[in-house]
Parts: sequence; C-alpha cells; structure tokens
Amino acid sequence: MTTQAHPRAVCLVSGGMDSAVTLAEARAAGFEAFALSFRYGQHHAVELEAAARVAAAGGAADHRIVGLDLAALGGSALVDGPDERPEVPKDRSFDPAGPAAPGDEGAIPSTYVPARNTVFLAVALGWAETLGARHIFLGVNAVDYSGYPDCRPEFLAAFEALAGVATAAGTEEGARFHVEAPLLHASKADIARRALELGVDLGLTHTCYDPEVQAARSLACGRCDACRLRLAGFAEAGLVDPVDYVTP
Amino acid sequence: MTTQAHPRAVCLVSGGMDSAVTLAEARAAGFEAFALSFRYGQHHAVELEAAARVAAAGGAADHRIVGLDLAALGGSALVDGPDERPEVPKDRSFDPAGPAAPGDEGAIPSTYVPARNTVFLAVALGWAETLGARHIFLGVNAVDYSGYPDCRPEFLAAFEALAGVATAAGTEEGARFHVEAPLLHASKADIARRALELGVDLGLTHTCYDPEVQAARSLACGRCDACRLRLAGFAEAGLVDPVDYVTP
Repeated sequence: MTTQAHPRAVCLVSGGMDSAVTLAEARAAGFEAFALSFRYGQHHAVELEAAARVAAAGGAADHRIVGLDLAALGGSALVDGPDERPEVPKDRSFDPAGPAAPGDEGAIPSTYVPARNTVFLAVALGWAETLGARHIFLGVNAVDYSGYPDCRPEFLAAFEALAGVATAAGTEEGARFHVEAPLLHASKADIARRALELGVDLGLTHTCYDPEVQAARSLACGRCDACRLRLAGFAEAGLVDPVDYVTP
Repeated sequence: MTTQAHPRAVCLVSGGMDSAVTLAEARAAGFEAFALSFRYGQHHAVELEAAARVAAAGGAADHRIVGLDLAALGGSALVDGPDERPEVPKDRSFDPAGPAAPGDEGAIPSTYVPARNTVFLAVALGWAETLGARHIFLGVNAVDYSGYPDCRPEFLAAFEALAGVATAAGTEEGARFHVEAPLLHASKADIARRALELGVDLGLTHTCYDPEVQAARSLACGRCDACRLRLAGFAEAGLVDPVDYVTP
C-alpha cells in the first residue's frame, strides 16, 4: 500500500453532538475521515439526516449508512420465559457517543441493542480494512462510560487486540489497528466547549429521543433525558445550544 | 438468572455442512441451540432455505436471520484509487464454516466481506447476551483456518476476551463467554464422518457456489471449488454425499 499523506480513519457518526465532535477531533489530528452510520430499525429518519449533515459539514471524505436488521433478534418471542431474561442495561441512544438516558429506568426498551458497540466496531473494522485505514474513532464518553461495559477503556483495548488478529491487515508488521475515543473522559460541558474550539456547528446535530418531536423533524423536546443531559452540558459550559427546542 | 437445565448456546448456521455438524455438536454437548443466520446481499435464497432446514432438523430451539447491508461498504466507489486498495483475502462462502475456495484467485470478489467473522460473532454475542447464553458455536475449520486470520485460534481467543468485557453479563463473576469451534482442526473428511456419527442429514445442506445452479435451487454443480472440496471430503471418508449434483 502507498503511504497516505493523510492517513484514513473510520468515524462512527450518529448525528449526535458527541460523534460530531469526535469527527472534528479526527480531522484535527490529520486524518482523512470516513463517516459510518447505522440504520437498525429504531431510527427516525431525522437522526440519519443529522448524521449526513454532520458528516458533510465535518469534512468527511465519504459517508456510508449500513442497514442492520437487529430487530430480528428482539421482541418478546426471543426468550421462553421472563425469568430467564438476563438483566441488560437501560435504553441507549443510537449514538455510540450518545447520552445514557440515566433517568430511564424500568423494562427493557425496544431500542436496546445488545453488544451494540461491539457490532458497530466490527463493521467499522471491516470498512477500515477495505479502506486501508488503521484508526477507528468513536464518541463514547464519560457519561456512557459510567454505565455501559462496552464504553470502558478495557473494552476498547480488548477490541484493539481483537482487531490485531482479526484481519489480514492487522497481521502485517506495524499495521495494528487503533480504537480512538478522544472524548472518553469528557463531560457534556467539555464536549460543548470543545465543539466551539473546533468550529463544530452543533446546530446540525440531533440528540432528542422524543418520537413525536422527532416526527416533527429537526426540533428537540428539551424534556427527554437526552435533551436534559445536553442542555445541562451547555449550561455548565456557559454556552447556548444552537438547536431549536420545542420547550426552551 | 435461574440455572438452566440445558444451558443455551447461539450457533451460527449458514446452511453448509460444517455449520450443520457444528449445530449437532452443540446439541450433543447438551446445549439448547439458538441458530443464527445472516442475509447480507450476496445470498441466493437457497442458502437461507438450507439454513432453515438445517436448524429445524438439528433441533434448534429458534432460528433467526439477521439482515446486514454490508453492500453499503462495497463497490468501486469505496476507495479513491486502486493503488490504495489493500490486499484482502480471496472469496469466501457465507458459511463461517464454509470452504475457502482455494482455487479462486484473482480480483476482489463482490462477495468478500471484510472482518466477516468479527461481525457475525458480534451479533451472536448480542443475541447470546439477550438469551442468557454463554456459549457461541461456529463452524470454522482447518480449511478456513489455513487461509483466514479470523478463523485462527488466536482470533477466537481474542473474541472471548473481548466478550468478557463487552457485556454486562460478561462482567459478572463466573459468567464468561465461550467461543466454541468444535471443528477447528477437522478436515472435510472428518466432518463428513462426524455427520454420520451424529446423525446429521447432509442432504439438507447447501454448499455450491455456482449462481446458475443455485438459481435452479437445491442442486449443486459438482465443479465449483466449494463442491470439489466437499466431494473430496466425502471421498476421503469413503462416504457418499446425499446432495444431488448436476455433474456427479
């Protein structure tokens, strides 16, 4: 392979603010960024539209959306009895960097995607191999990290180790894969400030979970856990969120 | 979680003979088997029909087919120039246990799926977590093992390590995940013999790559690399392949 002036990186982009800033971090670090999003059933189109806006505004060289029919594994038919259903984490947004919806306790939500980051990183690894990229960026951060096993540093290290033996590229001398999570220890306030520094237009991003508001397109409710987490981050950073809220 | 009389296992089932025997091995080892197949663009329906037959005949408790639109990552638009395209392995059948098509040299085939076993295992891990299963069976074997990085024992070990930190279940005491590849060191002849011992009807399986023959449904060409590999295995084992061949 030829040496690339700008080494390539695959960036997981959901349309949320965390992955938008992660994409900007990848570009600031000198990478040619290839944005990757997933359509897996629970999406409202507005999220993937936001991902496309974020990828374009963030200077991604390409943006691909992979359909993943994980709904085939969901539903009440999945297990024989509720007593055998293991405990699983709470609802999570699509964004690998997305807020963890800390207030959303209760039953397993229909949007829960088991082993989500493992699946997303596996697909990203496949694209990276095809592109000759050796870096995968994802926007997990401290908020996720506190709750989800697959947002922890030891998970990211284990995936790097796997990638090293999983691919033809990874077995080449000096060609190991790197999983980069530049926001791993960042709070929402840190991320809002970093967006300002990097010139990321957070007005292009979409965070809100509210399905009715999502159906109205490009507006955020300001009340759901994801909105509240985002707004609290902006407030803590002393910044104004450029997104339009139904309930400001 | 309650203790299960028959512990659950997720088994990757493609419809080929290797995964059919792997499913039987899982059942023989006392597992309640949950069969998992993938539809990802390059399939002819006949393969997934074979997978459904194999799962039913093999006594799987359930069979799910996950759609995976990896075609979004393929195609010539993927890279800017051919000089930057990394070397990738040769064509591979859908079956994680499938033959490696050793004679199929040349250009990158449209059916190539980068990091395939990583993606399949990641989805299997998600389903396993939901089911409370701690074992994932896949049919990789010595033929694949010689050619593909993601069929090697060190890959399987690295995935087990990843699974241990990727899931809520994996972080529980004594709840580690196991990746089982009972045919890892088996030749095609070994697999044909083992099928006989376990009572697996290999007449239900589908191996042939030939698209015209596939289009004719349930017949095998007897000439493609996959068919030749399979037939050589039966011949070496002194057994007759029950599948109908166009060219016997």
